[in-house]
Amino acid sequence: MSVVALEWRSDHLAILDQRRLPGSVVWLNARSVEDVAAAISDMAVRGAPAIGLAAAYGLALAALRGDSLSDAADRLAATRPTAVNLKWALDRVVSQALSEGFEAVLAAAKQIEDEDREANRAIGRHGAELVPHGARILTICNTGSLATGGHGTALGIIRSAYEQGKVRKVYACETRPRLQGARLTAWELMQDGIPFSLIADGAAGSLMARNIDFVVVGADRIAANGDTANKLGTYSLAVLARHHGIPFVVAAPSSTLDPSMPDGSGIPIEERDPREITEIEGVSVAPSGCPAYNPAFDVTPGSLITAIVTETEVHHPPYTFADV
Amino acid sequence: MSVVALEWRSDHLAILDQRRLPGSVVWLNARSVEDVAAAISDMAVRGAPAIGLAAAYGLALAALRGDSLSDAADRLAATRPTAVNLKWALDRVVSQALSEGFEAVLAAAKQIEDEDREANRAIGRHGAELVPHGARILTICNTGSLATGGHGTALGIIRSAYEQGKVRKVYACETRPRLQGARLTAWELMQDGIPFSLIADGAAGSLMARNIDFVVVGADRIAANGDTANKLGTYSLAVLARHHGIPFVVAAPSSTLDPSMPDGSGIPIEERDPREITEIEGVSVAPSGCPAYNPAFDVTPGSLITAIVTETEVHHPPYTFADV
Repeated sequence: MSVVALEWRSDHLAILDQRRLPGSVVWLNARSVEDVAAAISDMAVRGAPAIGLAAAYGLALAALRGDSLSDAADRLAATRPTAVNLKWALDRVVSQALSEGFEAVLAAAKQIEDEDREANRAIGRHGAELVPHGARILTICNTGSLATGGHGTALGIIRSAYEQGKVRKVYACETRPRLQGARLTAWELMQDGIPFSLIADGAAGSLMARNIDFVVVGADRIAANGDTANKLGTYSLAVLARHHGIPFVVAAPSSTLDPSMPDGSGIPIEERDPREITEIEGVSVAPSGCPAYNPAFDVTPGSLITAIVTETEVHHPPYTFADV
Repeated sequence: MSVVALEWRSDHLAILDQRRLPGSVVWLNARSVEDVAAAISDMAVRGAPAIGLAAAYGLALAALRGDSLSDAADRLAATRPTAVNLKWALDRVVSQALSEGFEAVLAAAKQIEDEDREANRAIGRHGAELVPHGARILTICNTGSLATGGHGTALGIIRSAYEQGKVRKVYACETRPRLQGARLTAWELMQDGIPFSLIADGAAGSLMARNIDFVVVGADRIAANGDTANKLGTYSLAVLARHHGIPFVVAAPSSTLDPSMPDGSGIPIEERDPREITEIEGVSVAPSGCPAYNPAFDVTPGSLITAIVTETEVHHPPYTFADV
């Protein structure tokens, strides 16, 4: 069984509603730019590469309906600020489509999807070489097929290393507040039969003191010096890994690189609704009126990152990413 | 308004059911040792000092019914393995009660409660001296009136420092899986009007990089060398605090010291039901059959602890706690 986050279906984009997983498999049929924008904002589709793909197909929907591509790109770019793949995919479709006609825009979107799937396979191959034999691997959030065009970034490395017999066990951080580890990564790992345990995010430290050999995470934006924005909690994992002498590896396609940012200080960090903290499954778990602070991402300095794996190669510090 | 975790009422122990907070204020009437044991096991009452108090009153119930004190102590001691206050309170009531008669046992239990309340005030006074002016303070779990005889340990220090005008803001980790930060600490802080934000546990790292001046936590057991068992996630906070040069302070009454343990390696760490991770509010948030690892506590080495505050004094490393 192969999981996909989205699927172009002749005249609309089918989006697997990740908010309903793993309990229900529900497809949303996006027929307009606004449908796609809402699916991205509300996190029906999430994961930096996957929201880039969704946005690319959003432009195809605009072309199909004869809407302005440039207005559509502005609307889609405004949905979520941190992952740079979104902007990258929009720019690329706009610049690469041979015309503003539907077929040309759709072809450009499909090419991004194909390339992302290939990129993930290559990331998996390169990254698996870094994984020690018998590794107990810690990861956070979801970076698998649901977050990408397929296979995955960090989870792609885990998959490739598992195929090579190198993985003893995976520990998946549940990843509050949206629980992508519990809902999505656990679902993907179970489908692949990879041995794992789900853990509370707070268990990462004591596990690293004894039972972890390798930490691998995804990325939403990587600055020129390697500073990496990723899911909230990633920075804590990087500090803990450094304290325990455990390799801490970031996996992402080149579309996640943003050399226009010299370092991570300029990366916009999305703050989401405090109710993601104070309510779970629609039930209040905090007092009425309780204030909460809910940044969706944090920034890990490149200096704490052992390696950054892209589809082209394994990068080592000091990182100096430049425009290609 | 003053919050209490439990209250002796002439012939039974009323226990505030903390599993129902903050939504409902429900009192359980414990009339037997088994009632108290169940309330401790199921975490209707929790917090190391508070479960010690509950157990002490459990012995009073045994005495009232003419049950064997020694059997009752064995039953109560078996409820939760990590917090040493439980065993300490049971031993003390058994050794201090002038007879096995109800009045004598009840008097010994009440004395423990009175002393714990006094101890917390003293911890608050001593600990507040360590808090810098204008402090932004991070804490985990619940260490307030609900976890103790009153005032609190780590939260007692926050309260005392706030009374002195030293606290700018508190950041309360929600504390998965049982969400004591969201359910209980937020409730206590709101009642006191102390400014705070609730955060996901994964936000601690990026907050410490910018916005935290002081970290204070409670303890469930402290070994002779200062190694401290406390709520899962505490060890991560200690490593992060060290990385950022932020004081990391442990607050606990002397009843939490266990000099019989030379270091933390021998402290039993309770593993609880994996469903605390895979289900929230009775709703499954992970795939059916998802494996989870759910230790309730972790151990922080004394070497990472800036100070341990008890009712008698502020202890500094290297720690060498001995029997008194």
